Amino acid sequence: MVDQELHRGLEDIAVAETRLSTIDGEAGELIIGGYPVEELAKNALYEESVFLLFNDRLPTKSELESFRTELAGYRKISEEIKQVLRQAARENADAMDALRMGVAAANLGFDSTESTDHAKRLVSVIPTIVTTYWRYRSGKEPVEPRDDLGHTANYLYMLSGEEPDPAAVRGLETYLNTVVDHGLNASTFVARSIASSDSDLVSAVTGAVGSLKGPLHGGAPGPVLEMLLVAHESDDPEGYVQEKLDAGERLMGFGHRVYRTRDPRAEVLSRAAERLYSGSGDRAFFGFVEEFEETAVSRLSDHKPDRKLETNVEFYTAVLLYGVGIPQELFTTTFAVSRVGGWVAHCLEQAADNKIIRPVSIYVGDHNRSWTPAENR
Amino acid sequence: MVDQELHRGLEDIAVAETRLSTIDGEAGELIIGGYPVEELAKNALYEESVFLLFNDRLPTKSELESFRTELAGYRKISEEIKQVLRQAARENADAMDALRMGVAAANLGFDSTESTDHAKRLVSVIPTIVTTYWRYRSGKEPVEPRDDLGHTANYLYMLSGEEPDPAAVRGLETYLNTVVDHGLNASTFVARSIASSDSDLVSAVTGAVGSLKGPLHGGAPGPVLEMLLVAHESDDPEGYVQEKLDAGERLMGFGHRVYRTRDPRAEVLSRAAERLYSGSGDRAFFGFVEEFEETAVSRLSDHKPDRKLETNVEFYTAVLLYGVGIPQELFTTTFAVSRVGGWVAHCLEQAADNKIIRPVSIYVGDHNRSWTPAENR
Repeated sequence: MVDQELHRGLEDIAVAETRLSTIDGEAGELIIGGYPVEELAKNALYEESVFLLFNDRLPTKSELESFRTELAGYRKISEEIKQVLRQAARENADAMDALRMGVAAANLGFDSTESTDHAKRLVSVIPTIVTTYWRYRSGKEPVEPRDDLGHTANYLYMLSGEEPDPAAVRGLETYLNTVVDHGLNASTFVARSIASSDSDLVSAVTGAVGSLKGPLHGGAPGPVLEMLLVAHESDDPEGYVQEKLDAGERLMGFGHRVYRTRDPRAEVLSRAAERLYSGSGDRAFFGFVEEFEETAVSRLSDHKPDRKLETNVEFYTAVLLYGVGIPQELFTTTFAVSRVGGWVAHCLEQAADNKIIRPVSIYVGDHNRSWTPAENR
Repeated sequence: MVDQELHRGLEDIAVAETRLSTIDGEAGELIIGGYPVEELAKNALYEESVFLLFNDRLPTKSELESFRTELAGYRKISEEIKQVLRQAARENADAMDALRMGVAAANLGFDSTESTDHAKRLVSVIPTIVTTYWRYRSGKEPVEPRDDLGHTANYLYMLSGEEPDPAAVRGLETYLNTVVDHGLNASTFVARSIASSDSDLVSAVTGAVGSLKGPLHGGAPGPVLEMLLVAHESDDPEGYVQEKLDAGERLMGFGHRVYRTRDPRAEVLSRAAERLYSGSGDRAFFGFVEEFEETAVSRLSDHKPDRKLETNVEFYTAVLLYGVGIPQELFTTTFAVSRVGGWVAHCLEQAADNKIIRPVSIYVGDHNRSWTPAENR
């Protein structure tokens, strides 16, 4: 084993075949369920995206109706989960910690043995967990889900207690479609790994939430928004960007491990943000954001000409979610509200043609130590 | 990407260096923290095994005292977790589901920012979660932990409400040491993968519990016990084994993916079981078990001469835990009571020299589908 090659991040090691999504980083292309993200994101209801991932085709009109009704019926959470979320809010636990606690207990009061039922249930219940936590965190009582509202509208409704503006719903719906799946990212791989021991979907999605919590994976849109709000306050994007670069600091929201050109999701989200802000939103802020982006990309290109640091998904995620009215503390949990569709679809795909995922380690410790009783140490 | 090799189970792909444990399947050897399992398991307190994994050496006498005191101080769980466990018990949720719910919320009431504190806390709190669930499941009130008892004795005490027999404590302690770590098994790999996005230990261990729940990983000692009890009832090991083999059924507790000889852990646990049963236990049952093992190994060798189907760890796990008084429903959770030491040590090791674990997938779906509105589908 000693001469074995070490693949620390498993980079470029292919572990699964998938029909769910694929990324061409050089061309800046993302395909989800066979559709270019640009086609899917602006047109689909989130329920259609999830149906697409589950079934490899879009639903007919009547299938869509039944699917939406079914999902809407799975939104309630048990009293014990609410108590845990209330306590988490009292202790100022991070929203992702609260989400993990809620998802881990998601099979309380739900006893189907069909994994497809659990898949739908998980998609439906995550918005309820997130908003219940947030209402407690804001010193308010949770809002019960309304089954006459679509998935996205109901999420915003449970957050504010008010029926949401259709433009905000469309903006959020576009976001949820855009990030629903993205190849074998870290959390999706964790979900598939857990599913691969033939465990259940609640366990797999709980693990994925834990992975997404890590700042190396899901954590950057919040800091992007903070940066934009501070820069907007200064009203001098050129000066702000230059100052950061002179200080050797990183500009949040630019550059991606995979994409060598502008992240196609940034394109989709910037158009959605433009539509949103040109309606009821703060047009002046959006104008500032566009100016900031242009300045940053240009300065970054002067500053690091050897690297292509283009706008990434997190930049316009921050702008769009802020416009939609999602609190910054819930940016990563809102990512989970979307990505759960990809997680469960990947788990079902893994289960359909499973092999337990179990790599090996290389031992670098001692051999043959011999025992000494505590008295003689 | 199309010509890329697919490694579905990541079999034989090395993803980490570790000083925690190593397995030589051909020789039937297992090293934990530099010690052959035979040396460590029979001598150590479980707290010593955990200290060893954390520090790569055994504690001095006074370090051991402090470590035991520290661990004992971390045993309590919050009221909200108890309510979740009570509800899980009411709904007859699986013990591993209940454990996942409890572990996911383990940072309620615990606000250290040091990952080593969370590591110790997780080791201490899992027995409390398991026993609290089990007491509710048995229609009893939970037993509060006693900080004057060692880790292993306290686990048995919280289970029964009575101070345990020292022979049972020693038997269980040997088991906990034996299975505390075993290379990069599936749940340990999940823990490291979650830790690799720079997430927290509670998230990592929650994911590992979910992986261990899967029957391809942690699920077989229960069925072994059922088999032995039925066979014992028949009082005819030869006949029972022959009947199973004639019917083409699998004999539980024999054969292992890695070991080509007798699993060294089976050896350690069979000796521990022998000591236990020769004291206060059911000697007749143990005598039967030995006869059964001999018959089974011999018949399996006649039946499948090309395969080496030797006794595996699950066989004597079942016998030992049954003798110790652990209910069969808690066999997998008791595995977690031990393995959490390995999980957290692996996470700390991963964090010390981290790279995010993120393999890739090969896309086999369609490209360039174009959108049709629901009305026209």
